[in-house]
Amino acid sequence: MIVVMKPHATEEMVQAMVKRVEEMGLKAHVIVGEERTVIAAAGIKRDSHQEELESCAEVEKVVPIVAAYKVASKETKPEPTVVKIRDLTIGGSHVGVIAGPCSVESEEQILQVAHQVKAAGATGLRGGAFKPRTSPYSFQGMKEEGLKLLALAREETGLAVVTEVMTPHHVDLLCQYADVLQIGARNMQNYHLLQAVGETRLPVLLKRGPAASIEEFLLAAEYILDQGNQQVILCERGIRTFETHTRFTLPLATVPYLHERTHLPVVIDPSHGTGVASLVPPMCAAAIAAGCDGLILEVHPDPSRAMSDGAQSLTPEVFAQTMETCRKVAAAVGKELG
Amino acid sequence: MIVVMKPHATEEMVQAMVKRVEEMGLKAHVIVGEERTVIAAAGIKRDSHQEELESCAEVEKVVPIVAAYKVASKETKPEPTVVKIRDLTIGGSHVGVIAGPCSVESEEQILQVAHQVKAAGATGLRGGAFKPRTSPYSFQGMKEEGLKLLALAREETGLAVVTEVMTPHHVDLLCQYADVLQIGARNMQNYHLLQAVGETRLPVLLKRGPAASIEEFLLAAEYILDQGNQQVILCERGIRTFETHTRFTLPLATVPYLHERTHLPVVIDPSHGTGVASLVPPMCAAAIAAGCDGLILEVHPDPSRAMSDGAQSLTPEVFAQTMETCRKVAAAVGKELG
Amino acid sequence: MIVVMKPHATEEMVQAMVKRVEEMGLKAHVIVGEERTVIAAAGIKRDSHQEELESCAEVEKVVPIVAAYKVASKETKPEPTVVKIRDLTIGGSHVGVIAGPCSVESEEQILQVAHQVKAAGATGLRGGAFKPRTSPYSFQGMKEEGLKLLALAREETGLAVVTEVMTPHHVDLLCQYADVLQIGARNMQNYHLLQAVGETRLPVLLKRGPAASIEEFLLAAEYILDQGNQQVILCERGIRTFETHTRFTLPLATVPYLHERTHLPVVIDPSHGTGVASLVPPMCAAAIAAGCDGLILEVHPDPSRAMSDGAQSLTPEVFAQTMETCRKVAAAVGKELG
Amino acid sequence: MIVVMKPHATEEMVQAMVKRVEEMGLKAHVIVGEERTVIAAAGIKRDSHQEELESCAEVEKVVPIVAAYKVASKETKPEPTVVKIRDLTIGGSHVGVIAGPCSVESEEQILQVAHQVKAAGATGLRGGAFKPRTSPYSFQGMKEEGLKLLALAREETGLAVVTEVMTPHHVDLLCQYADVLQIGARNMQNYHLLQAVGETRLPVLLKRGPAASIEEFLLAAEYILDQGNQQVILCERGIRTFETHTRFTLPLATVPYLHERTHLPVVIDPSHGTGVASLVPPMCAAAIAAGCDGLILEVHPDPSRAMSDGAQSLTPEVFAQTMETCRKVAAAVGKELG
Repeated sequence: MIVVMKPHATEEMVQAMVKRVEEMGLKAHVIVGEERTVIAAAGIKRDSHQEELESCAEVEKVVPIVAAYKVASKETKPEPTVVKIRDLTIGGSHVGVIAGPCSVESEEQILQVAHQVKAAGATGLRGGAFKPRTSPYSFQGMKEEGLKLLALAREETGLAVVTEVMTPHHVDLLCQYADVLQIGARNMQNYHLLQAVGETRLPVLLKRGPAASIEEFLLAAEYILDQGNQQVILCERGIRTFETHTRFTLPLATVPYLHERTHLPVVIDPSHGTGVASLVPPMCAAAIAAGCDGLILEVHPDPSRAMSDGAQSLTPEVFAQTMETCRKVAAAVGKELG
Repeated sequence: MIVVMKPHATEEMVQAMVKRVEEMGLKAHVIVGEERTVIAAAGIKRDSHQEELESCAEVEKVVPIVAAYKVASKETKPEPTVVKIRDLTIGGSHVGVIAGPCSVESEEQILQVAHQVKAAGATGLRGGAFKPRTSPYSFQGMKEEGLKLLALAREETGLAVVTEVMTPHHVDLLCQYADVLQIGARNMQNYHLLQAVGETRLPVLLKRGPAASIEEFLLAAEYILDQGNQQVILCERGIRTFETHTRFTLPLATVPYLHERTHLPVVIDPSHGTGVASLVPPMCAAAIAAGCDGLILEVHPDPSRAMSDGAQSLTPEVFAQTMETCRKVAAAVGKELG
Repeated sequence: MIVVMKPHATEEMVQAMVKRVEEMGLKAHVIVGEERTVIAAAGIKRDSHQEELESCAEVEKVVPIVAAYKVASKETKPEPTVVKIRDLTIGGSHVGVIAGPCSVESEEQILQVAHQVKAAGATGLRGGAFKPRTSPYSFQGMKEEGLKLLALAREETGLAVVTEVMTPHHVDLLCQYADVLQIGARNMQNYHLLQAVGETRLPVLLKRGPAASIEEFLLAAEYILDQGNQQVILCERGIRTFETHTRFTLPLATVPYLHERTHLPVVIDPSHGTGVASLVPPMCAAAIAAGCDGLILEVHPDPSRAMSDGAQSLTPEVFAQTMETCRKVAAAVGKELG
Repeated sequence: MIVVMKPHATEEMVQAMVKRVEEMGLKAHVIVGEERTVIAAAGIKRDSHQEELESCAEVEKVVPIVAAYKVASKETKPEPTVVKIRDLTIGGSHVGVIAGPCSVESEEQILQVAHQVKAAGATGLRGGAFKPRTSPYSFQGMKEEGLKLLALAREETGLAVVTEVMTPHHVDLLCQYADVLQIGARNMQNYHLLQAVGETRLPVLLKRGPAASIEEFLLAAEYILDQGNQQVILCERGIRTFETHTRFTLPLATVPYLHERTHLPVVIDPSHGTGVASLVPPMCAAAIAAGCDGLILEVHPDPSRAMSDGAQSLTPEVFAQTMETCRKVAAAVGKELG
């Protein structure tokens, strides 16, 4: 941590700050420059001393040197984490594909689409039973009935079921049906929920919040890891920017950046990341070329009749074509799809 | 709702869309322009037909005409909602001031600061007992012990207690101690939590998420209102933008904009909205000049020793001076402070 | 400048970096921490060494300690700069008000509005003769004819004329008619233009670009100051964010933040900052409460017939009421309007 | 254009608006809904009536139906524009690669890197002679001397020279040396410059401004096209968002989105789009997978000694490896590199 003193800080103020830093168990090095004095505080501390020091009147700014996350860090575990459940492999040289409708709507719908996505190469099935919706007047999902239909689809196809959990109270229920628990973007910093899924031993797919920095994202993962659950899949699904032609802005540089910092696998959600079905296939190819470990995609037998997210859902036909291109792109960057 | 067809949509496609719109219980008006055909769909519908229609291949875009929120809308209730609890009045010509530390840290700390902020003109006391923290390694609050200290401070000062609830499971507990339940920015779209506080009859202070649009913010309020709890206070606490010299960007135009659209009162949080103590006093004055119905502020007896958010906390002395200026600004815009 | 080495940088790499830093004329202090080695490079250097060092493979990041701007800095000149021209005073305890139409449209229009804004308390007159327009098909201004009309309005009213210059080639022409040269937001980093106005001795009103950081803004001012023109007025007119209910987001915390860092005066443009006429009056009051040194506002005799920016222009009546409130708010914060 | 009236607009107000719309040469259709009346205004008009109508007190909002750009639109010219100059082909099934240093620094540097990038597969050479720099104290380029060196490098290698023009006054000079004129992101809305390059017959590479919407970007292209220069290459180089781990955020969905709307070719600049050399290679592959028509990249013989942008420059070795991967990815999506 580097503490930058204000321009006219006196020697006395500097000494008081040195004392303060040492009280925190850190070692202080004073460097007197021509315009500023800075104090380098060395030692391993990952808690909130930064805020304390920044609140001192004579301090101009405090610059952290070490990232605040620890278990998620590649420095802690250099080799990549690979999540495997049923035929779904995320990480290493495998690009896993999780596909399915935004919401489970009926037995017919989910079974049909499960068979279709499996035929095209998916190894995971997505489908919402508990749906977080912006408006209280929108369809909120089929709830437990939806979970049962997902389990039925798994039985018929062998696909691993990925579905969202919205509140700690539902975690036990979801564990009975799901293979992977999804934490939605709106809940990325719902810490009680993160701790609750951290206590299970199911893999967790954690979506990045649309305003979360990468550090906040990894610290959210850290809440799960800290409970002993090591199987966290990070999912970039777009951030909120000034752009309006896409629902969110999908920053694919997140993929190599995360790979430099964490051992956790990274999947991309081009459906939410663009919000526009016609942009999804090229962004699937781009995500794989950028090195992602998996895709999560919305596919619906008839998007124009979908109860949610129709505008960003692929038809099964377009999904199948997209998988074909993706397979070639994966090979071009030395990976294997599915 | 206006459905804009793609440039080369055939007459047949237009008729199919008209039929679709009518099946939804809406009345369709076709307008053939020189470059596009548009279908105006009239009728009151606040659910997600927009998405369904946007997912049709021949539709270019769908433009909603009516806002998706209803109970929060000024069209539903033109007169402003005033929330009153103990001496705290938010709304109408009153600017309520809620002040106190980020976290309750000890009996001495909370009692001292409660007396200080009351003396300077606050009528509400803020203080976190359950703290949402970005890092799992940061101080997480004194929990129920903290709630008891807040209640004690209320007993001594008469200040209304405003404190955050993080998970539905805690709502009952919080109701025993709090006068106003706060929903933090990270939980603005935690729908189970919104419904749970909607079922209580305590006023709810709902913070805007840093990436939430105004419509999403009002729809989150709608989740609470929809459960029958009419006492919702909207709190703008800054949005995430590219600016880095402040923690968030505090867009004060939100105040008059919300006043044009909703009857709910609007308070401003300049502490989180800037993250820098020296910027808080001018932004308090500015918020009042912009017409806000209240302020929520962090005040700590010794910010440099605060266990959280020290960098943005005012000392009691600066808080008292700030209140003096704010009183004059309130008078200048025809309002009364406290 | 603090150079943070990568976690596994060897002693040899550190020594190479020390040598590099010393070659730049800086003094290097090595601090060996438990997880990282950092090198503090002391000395006054404001050029681009940061980039050079960041490009070294063994460097994790480089943190600048001293701001890159110099002449604009309050450390260079602690007392505030006050710009005075005719009756227009910007800075110190004076809040100057510059008002007028987006574009000069006719003799009748500009004379009428000039008299109206003067009567209500403005001391500067704005009006575009050369208009930067997003679309090549929009009205581009009356050009020199417009400048003549502005000069005529000045003759009749005594108001100082503020008008935009778009290209270096026009600077001489503008100098014949204008009292203050305005650099529009789109041209904030048009360096040839900045240098050209820096060579004149007219005050320059420099608008912040909608994506410019504060440092980039002050460095743009530095281009003007560096040519010897000391009369630069900084203008915050809103940044681009994800918000869509306002044209831009107006971050008023810019005012006190700039006042802490620079001696240059700061004016606010709530017309462009919101884009919505009904939001302009409260934001004028808020800007003054935040401590700004001036306002620049769009006022049009008949906004619904304006050739540009009608949606954000005030009528003369609303402008007069706004000035009344602003006068009271200015008094509340110890300033004087006009 | 759809004009949405305020909720309580009277029949008389609606009729006045209809008259207004008809005066503009548009045909008005009134649709009376349960909560709002809307007026659909049909006809081809691309100028600023939207603003005029929005400024009417009784209008809630105006929704444009047709995009404001025209010559750039795919509706005007459905077949893609292919720009060819020397061996550089941008558009169609060709992915052109323009590589070279940020700045021309010396004869040795530019000749060395020109041979290296050519050997690896580039067909265009980039290099700045006139450099827009954020700080007036940074290196501003070798100016005409730099242009001469670029021409020399072209003579030796046959690579097409792409270099930036910063002000209208330099256009003639640049035309003597360059094959493609580059307009930098800071100048995207420098309309005099756009018109000046529009009057030449050299291809123009237009960079998107970091806060520009897609519509503003295409309207900037329209300024060039409108002067009769049809060879415009659009370049996405990243937008400004809240992300700080990359210099800008590179939104690759721009590629397919632009291809749906315009016939102009789209190139990607992953060097500025990320600002971090290690992220450039995966983003090159991703850009090609997303369907771009070209890349523009910074390559420097010794990035750690570069006079500008070293942190984002590739070494010639990494560039060569990147080209190899890119060739395979291009083949996977049915394109050819170089």
